[in-house]
Amino acid sequence: MGPIVALCGGVGGARLAHGLAQCLAPDDLTIIVNTGDDFEHLGLAISPDLDTVLYTLAGVANREQGWGRAGETLGVMSELKALAGPDWFLLGDKDIALHLIRTQALQAGETLSAVMARLAAALGVGPALVPMSDQPVRTILETAEGTLAFQDYFVARRCAPVVKAIRFEGAADARPAPAAEAALQRPDLAAIILCPSNPWLSMDPILSVPGMRDLIRSAAVPVLAVSPIIGGQAVKGPTAKIMSELGLACTNDAIAAHYAGLIDHLVIDRADTCSAPGLTIHTADILMRDEADRARLAGEILDILMGSTPAPQGD
Amino acid sequence: MGPIVALCGGVGGARLAHGLAQCLAPDDLTIIVNTGDDFEHLGLAISPDLDTVLYTLAGVANREQGWGRAGETLGVMSELKALAGPDWFLLGDKDIALHLIRTQALQAGETLSAVMARLAAALGVGPALVPMSDQPVRTILETAEGTLAFQDYFVARRCAPVVKAIRFEGAADARPAPAAEAALQRPDLAAIILCPSNPWLSMDPILSVPGMRDLIRSAAVPVLAVSPIIGGQAVKGPTAKIMSELGLACTNDAIAAHYAGLIDHLVIDRADTCSAPGLTIHTADILMRDEADRARLAGEILDILMGSTPAPQGD
Repeated sequence: MGPIVALCGGVGGARLAHGLAQCLAPDDLTIIVNTGDDFEHLGLAISPDLDTVLYTLAGVANREQGWGRAGETLGVMSELKALAGPDWFLLGDKDIALHLIRTQALQAGETLSAVMARLAAALGVGPALVPMSDQPVRTILETAEGTLAFQDYFVARRCAPVVKAIRFEGAADARPAPAAEAALQRPDLAAIILCPSNPWLSMDPILSVPGMRDLIRSAAVPVLAVSPIIGGQAVKGPTAKIMSELGLACTNDAIAAHYAGLIDHLVIDRADTCSAPGLTIHTADILMRDEADRARLAGEILDILMGSTPAPQGD
Repeated sequence: MGPIVALCGGVGGARLAHGLAQCLAPDDLTIIVNTGDDFEHLGLAISPDLDTVLYTLAGVANREQGWGRAGETLGVMSELKALAGPDWFLLGDKDIALHLIRTQALQAGETLSAVMARLAAALGVGPALVPMSDQPVRTILETAEGTLAFQDYFVARRCAPVVKAIRFEGAADARPAPAAEAALQRPDLAAIILCPSNPWLSMDPILSVPGMRDLIRSAAVPVLAVSPIIGGQAVKGPTAKIMSELGLACTNDAIAAHYAGLIDHLVIDRADTCSAPGLTIHTADILMRDEADRARLAGEILDILMGSTPAPQGD
């Protein structure tokens, strides 16, 4: 089949992106990554989801903790504590090396797209790893305890505050990154995949970039999402908690409703159901326990897409 | 005796400053440090001389290499290389922790004086460690191979290019740091010491800050310099090479001439001579081999100053 565009956030999305990278030629895969979690810490420009995808595809991710690098050291961090510096956000030495290169590049006027392409090449990653936008978009949570920037909510507060609303600061002034736009406009594009990332915290920021939804629908190719929930629970992270706080049941119907008008296919777990209308529902073992699972699920998804007609409208 | 102000650059100066810190009460010592070597690297604000003095006084300096931290690790540096980042300037992890705190503080509008005071307190350093100025002053070398920023000359080119002239960019717009000015204006000030640092590369930047020379002379206290050369050789660094390139003999007479009008006392090595007029010449063992030597030389210098009358004019 032709080239694929995958949209993804952090850990769960990165795993499927890694599976797709194992099934497709590098030129046939573009991964558009959420940058709504990006933030500045200690003057460093940090892009958690881009780095998780980069590390996962490069095979250097820490699989136990789900983020950061394998074999990481904490030389800087331990001295930061000794010098009474801020220590709420854990920064590994390898991570800091990457942050320093990115920060300096951005300060020198390079785009986030350009510096990430450079870093991906240095780590031997073949598929195109593209930020959703080169303009800053920041996920902001309105919570019962006040307005919180994403990392304050996610890391400092460990997702404890009750979420009332989510917005994406700067989105109005953002544009899709040029390589994201180009990938979605390829005449030979075969399909678009929404990876199993948090729809509200990881996918919505990408979809909030003006023009992104239109590019996806205008591509006139099958759009497939993989559900981030199994048996009414989030595989990882605060998806279920946030759905409940937003007044939604933690079901595939709610996921389908959230993506209504955007996707044609929803892949849910074998044990789950979905009764959403106007959508082709597929079942698979969507839990990715290990690396073999990633390639297996990616292969099953590509099989689904190969069997589908362009831009189908339900079954 | 009353409080002392010491002016100093990097390694050699830091050693005498450390000796003075061992002889004086913390409140009785203010160390004004050269910031002409300061530069930005990888987006980090680096102050080599301030850090060398800080590390030396805190007892955490690497004594073998003469700069940086003891027990330093290179986690960030090794990953910087793997990511094809710049690796010509060696950055230890502990060093980077300090640079990150300083960089963020400066970006947030804190003065260099304030952040260095905070870092000195965190490392348990008692004497006041004060940058010569809170405004950026940058040492620029005009060489036979073109104009070079200090670190390009000193680290990247290892002092190889022939120096034709030295200037201090930004000096015209700089002011002495408030704590430097206050220390030099204390009514009970006892003496001012120019540590054995390179007169052209370490002392001249300090003296280039408008008002600094006047503050020193207006203090009307004995001003004593320790020669940075022994037996016609620099104890450390490119002093002798630069003197030769500037057409000067590497003698204490040339050092005395350079400081003419500023100092009252010159301390030279026991084996050396100086015939400069209008100056009291003292001999001592000025080589500081170990920590005991630092306190010994500092004690001898304080004895000289205690025996001198205020603002003497030669012997």
